[in-house]
Order: sequence, then C-alpha cells, then structure tokens
Amino acid sequence: MAEREIQALLVTHSPDVRWLCGFTGSNAALAVTVKQAALFTDGRYTTQAREETRGARVTIAKKSALRECCALLGELAKKAWFDPQHTTVADLGLMRSGVNAKKSRGFFVALREPLVSVLRMVKDESELALMEKAAKLGCELFETMLPRMESGLTETGFAAELEFEARRRGAEGMSFETIIASGARSALPHGRATMAKLPRKGFVTLDFGVILKGYCSDMTRTVHLGRASREEHAAYDAVLEAQEAAVAAVKPGARCGDVDDAARSVLKKAGLGKYFTHSTGHGVGLEIHEQPRVAAAQGTPLETGMTITIEPGVYLPGKFGIRIEDMVAVTKKGNRILTPVSKSWIEL
Amino acid sequence: MAEREIQALLVTHSPDVRWLCGFTGSNAALAVTVKQAALFTDGRYTTQAREETRGARVTIAKKSALRECCALLGELAKKAWFDPQHTTVADLGLMRSGVNAKKSRGFFVALREPLVSVLRMVKDESELALMEKAAKLGCELFETMLPRMESGLTETGFAAELEFEARRRGAEGMSFETIIASGARSALPHGRATMAKLPRKGFVTLDFGVILKGYCSDMTRTVHLGRASREEHAAYDAVLEAQEAAVAAVKPGARCGDVDDAARSVLKKAGLGKYFTHSTGHGVGLEIHEQPRVAAAQGTPLETGMTITIEPGVYLPGKFGIRIEDMVAVTKKGNRILTPVSKSWIEL
Repeated sequence: MAEREIQALLVTHSPDVRWLCGFTGSNAALAVTVKQAALFTDGRYTTQAREETRGARVTIAKKSALRECCALLGELAKKAWFDPQHTTVADLGLMRSGVNAKKSRGFFVALREPLVSVLRMVKDESELALMEKAAKLGCELFETMLPRMESGLTETGFAAELEFEARRRGAEGMSFETIIASGARSALPHGRATMAKLPRKGFVTLDFGVILKGYCSDMTRTVHLGRASREEHAAYDAVLEAQEAAVAAVKPGARCGDVDDAARSVLKKAGLGKYFTHSTGHGVGLEIHEQPRVAAAQGTPLETGMTITIEPGVYLPGKFGIRIEDMVAVTKKGNRILTPVSKSWIEL
Repeated sequence: MAEREIQALLVTHSPDVRWLCGFTGSNAALAVTVKQAALFTDGRYTTQAREETRGARVTIAKKSALRECCALLGELAKKAWFDPQHTTVADLGLMRSGVNAKKSRGFFVALREPLVSVLRMVKDESELALMEKAAKLGCELFETMLPRMESGLTETGFAAELEFEARRRGAEGMSFETIIASGARSALPHGRATMAKLPRKGFVTLDFGVILKGYCSDMTRTVHLGRASREEHAAYDAVLEAQEAAVAAVKPGARCGDVDDAARSVLKKAGLGKYFTHSTGHGVGLEIHEQPRVAAAQGTPLETGMTITIEPGVYLPGKFGIRIEDMVAVTKKGNRILTPVSKSWIEL
C-alpha cells in the first residue's frame, strides 16, 4: 500500500477478504490502513467471524456491514481505494452514504490496477501445498472414475458419482459445475452434465475440480468411447501437442500471451485454429478463475509461485470437441504439472 | 418498459438473461428495446447460445460481449437503463467505452427500482411446477437421509451422501453449499459441512437445496441426536411456533415486514428474540436468494405466484442452534407449503 501511496483500502471481494484475514463468510467488508485492519460482517456470522479472523478487529454490523465499514474509513483516512471489478454501482452509492457527507465526494478512488488479486497470483509454500493436494485429489478422481465410464450412463449420473467420491475424500465442494459433455455435446466448451446418455461412439470431456480448504483444483481430460475416426484421432493429437507446447512455454519471465501463442500456433498449423474459441488458461487459487489470464496478447510475466491452467481445446459444432487441461505451477526452473495423470489417447 | 418510460435496457445478470431469453451461459449481455432483443456472448457459447436462445438475435462477440452490446444500444437509443445492483464500477466504464464517445456521458442510467428481478418475483404456472418439483425432491432427500444419520459420521460424509442422492435423482446441482451443522456448530447459521463428526448428543441442522432446470429449492430441518435438555426442547418449540406463525401470515397483500414480525414476536415472547439474528426469509427461484426480502420493516406486499422461504432460527453461541425452513408459494387463497415434510420434534 505504501508503495502505491494508498492510505486506506476497502476490501469486499470474499476471496480477497479470506486471503487477507481468514474470514470465509459471504458478507464482509474489510478496512485496511497501514496501521490497522477492521472486519465488518453481520449477525449470521457472530461466532464464525471470531473463530476465523486473524489480524483484524471484528465488528458485527447492526445494519449494513459495508456502510459501517465505510464510516470507519471516513474517520481514519482522507481517501480510500476500492476494487472497481468487484464493487457494484449500487454498493458504491452505499459506500458513499457511509462516510461523512462533506467528505463523500471524491473520497472513494477506484484502483487502476487490482491490488489484492495481484498479490494473490503468487502462492506461498503453504498455499502451493494445498493446491497440490487439491490437484492430486482431482487426479485420483479421474483414475477412480475412468473404469466406471460406459455408454448408457447419464452424464449427470456419472457426475454424481464423481462428486460423491470427491466429497467422500474430503472435498468441501466442487470448484465449479462439473462438465461431462459427451458425443456431439463435447463441442460445447462449457457443457454441464445433463440427462443425456454417454454414447456408444464418441468423445466424452470431463472437466472438474475440487475445493480443499478453500483452494480450487481444475483439470480436463477427453476420452473416446468406441472406435474413433481418423479425423477425431488427428484432432486429439493436435490438441495434445498444443497443450504440451504451452506447458513447455511456462517459466518465470515468460509472458502469458506467449504461452497462449504456443498452443494457438500448433492448432493453426493443424488447420484447427478457428475451432480453438477460448483462451489457453487462467490463474487458479481461492477462486477457480483468477489472474493472470493466459490469453492472446496478455503481457503479464509469469512469476515463480503462480498457478495457472493450460487448457487448449477444439470444438467442431455438431461434431465433436476435445480439451486437455492441466494445472501448472511456475517454478524457479520452469514449471511443475500439478495434475500429472496421463494425457495419452484413451479409447474405452 | 413503456410503463416506466424505459427506451432501452441492458441486462447482464445471468438469471435475468435466462429468464428473458433462455440462454444459460456465464457471459451474456442482452440489449432490449420495445421492438427487439439482441444477445451477445463469446465464442465458448457459439453452439449453446443458438440452441437455447428464444426471442433474441444472437451475436458472438469478437472481443467483449458487453462492449459490443453497448455499441448496439448506442445505435438504437438515446439512453439505456442498467441494473446498478449487478453492474460493477469497472463494467460501467467498459459499457461507456462501447457507445459513441459523444453520447457516452449520461447515456447509461441506473434503474432506481430493479426491473427484471421484480418481474421474476411472481412465478407463472410452468415456473411454479418446476419449483414444486425441486422442493419435492428436497423433501424426498430429507426423508431418505434421516434414517442414515448417526453419531460418528462426518458432516461432509453425510452431505456427500445427500448430494449424491440429489444428483442421482436428476438434480443439476445443489442450490448452495450444503449446511450440516452439528452440536455446538448448529449455532453457526451458515455452518457449512466440515470434517466434524455428528455428536452423540446435540442438534444437527440440515439446510440444503437442489437445482432442477435452473430453479432452486431450499429447506431446513433441525433434528436432535440423543436425549435433549429441557432448554433445547423449549427452544425448538418456540422456533416451530414462530415458523408456523410466519407461514400463517403469508397471503396476497400481506407485507413482508409483517410476515417477519409474526415470527419475531413469537421468539421475543419466548425470551429468544436476541438469538434470532437474521431475517425470516427471502424469495427463491432461478436464484437461491431473490426478491422479496422477508425482513423487518420491508413494505413489499406479497402477490399470488411469489415463492418465498420462511426460516426463523435461534443461535445460542457455544451451545446450540435451531432453524426450521419451508418454501412457501403465495396462492389466491393464502399460501401453499412446497416442502410439506414433517417439522415435528425428531430425536434419533
């Protein structure tokens, strides 16, 4: 804060609050100055807030936690910075109403660059240990579920079993709605599991993640049921080559845009560039989608301790789709794949 | 829109977009004028958007769906209204950058009263049928799981089984992180399931919901393991009486604040008022928390077709907590409980 000449900071985005002071409730406003930190929440969290919070004074707000937090900021500082990406226009109005009327004009300043989410990009050792554990659980789930996959099962039935195994092994929940997209549905990059049945012949994309102590895992594998066509084989090979090229490009100092380009250029060469309709990856941690974005032209340099996904894919509408995704930690020497389960062609 | 003299509306909140045009993707901007509707999303949703969307033209944005949508609004109208509750300060900047620079100042107007979420409060018959089905599944889960509850099981293990049964029976997912709060943890109103073991003696609060075709259910029951104390018994009776009093107050024309008061006054009389630390309920539908708020001093009148929760509770820090929750539909004649499973004292 001192470095960026920020006197006071308002933090309301839950993962940021958790990262800073440990509190996990859904309603929180944290005031941070160079000297102190104060957390405001509501009556639902009286006990929980006292149990979880470290390094911040806890106040249970009578009405609005946000408003009371801003009233305190108004007393402590001349200006306060906030995160415009995670503050609604309505909340900004409420924030202004919380500080003394004379001060309220110009009191709140939108951060030009995110602050806490940028700090969160680089994981410390205890965070990396948790991420690794979550990623490992994801791998175990894939290995457990693979032999159980057969045509005729519904996508949701299969997802249910996978999620049950996750919970049984201690996951607090899934990082996002499990994607089981089979047959022509594999061409939907975000095809959540439906009542559709796994086909006799065709791809099945499994994209899922678990949450362990707040930290998310994320991985994707695509397997084939029945005999594949030559086109399907060739497309799989190209996606795998692209994925491995992007992983190889991950090292400290590499730009996110270059990592994206490593995957994209392989798929372009294979004539599949136009079917790769999303970015190569994203940061992952307390949130399933964090900074940095691993996308075209992103200049953010990778740093040791960052954890990102590498997940190129191709989607041929009405035909099939393939995506392969690992979680990758940036290390001093280059990178380490946190989801080391096989990516080779699997035909069941 | 005509009634409120709104020429053009920007809709970006996912449940609102889904309700208006059927599209369920996570990134969407919908421009609505009196004459037309246009949906903008990104390349991940090319196939899905065409499959799902009704009544709106679909455009796959090259860069920002939001920005391209605003560019269109800039061509179609002199002003456009947006929902400040679901628009971040950062997005407002992006929106302004999308319209012609000369126009951008004052082009976007924050809605004073929410528009789509207010329309969504009243469910039509097809929505009510879905809500009823989701609520019924919730009841079945409670009845299935109750005999399986025993001391020594972990909260997460029990939640895992419940969620597995939900998925197996067709739920797309849970409406929110399942709350299984046992023993002294039942005093945490939002005590998500942990690795804690169900005690030999004490309350267990089960608060969970399922999603069916996008619609959420929500219910809570609190049961007792082992022999209860007189204090626990008396508190349960008071919460049940409060809950039933609030349900009885639900009818067309009743104010939300009066429904809240019906529950609160019972608990006050029982000397437990200060332990009822949250509001009585909330609307439920495509989102788990919707309008109206069933809270103190809320003037919103109930209307036929609204679906709300009625969920008073008491929380004695370090000792125990109790909450009882039903989903209730407002009917012409009064109300109908959508979660009719028994609320009587259960001692296992």
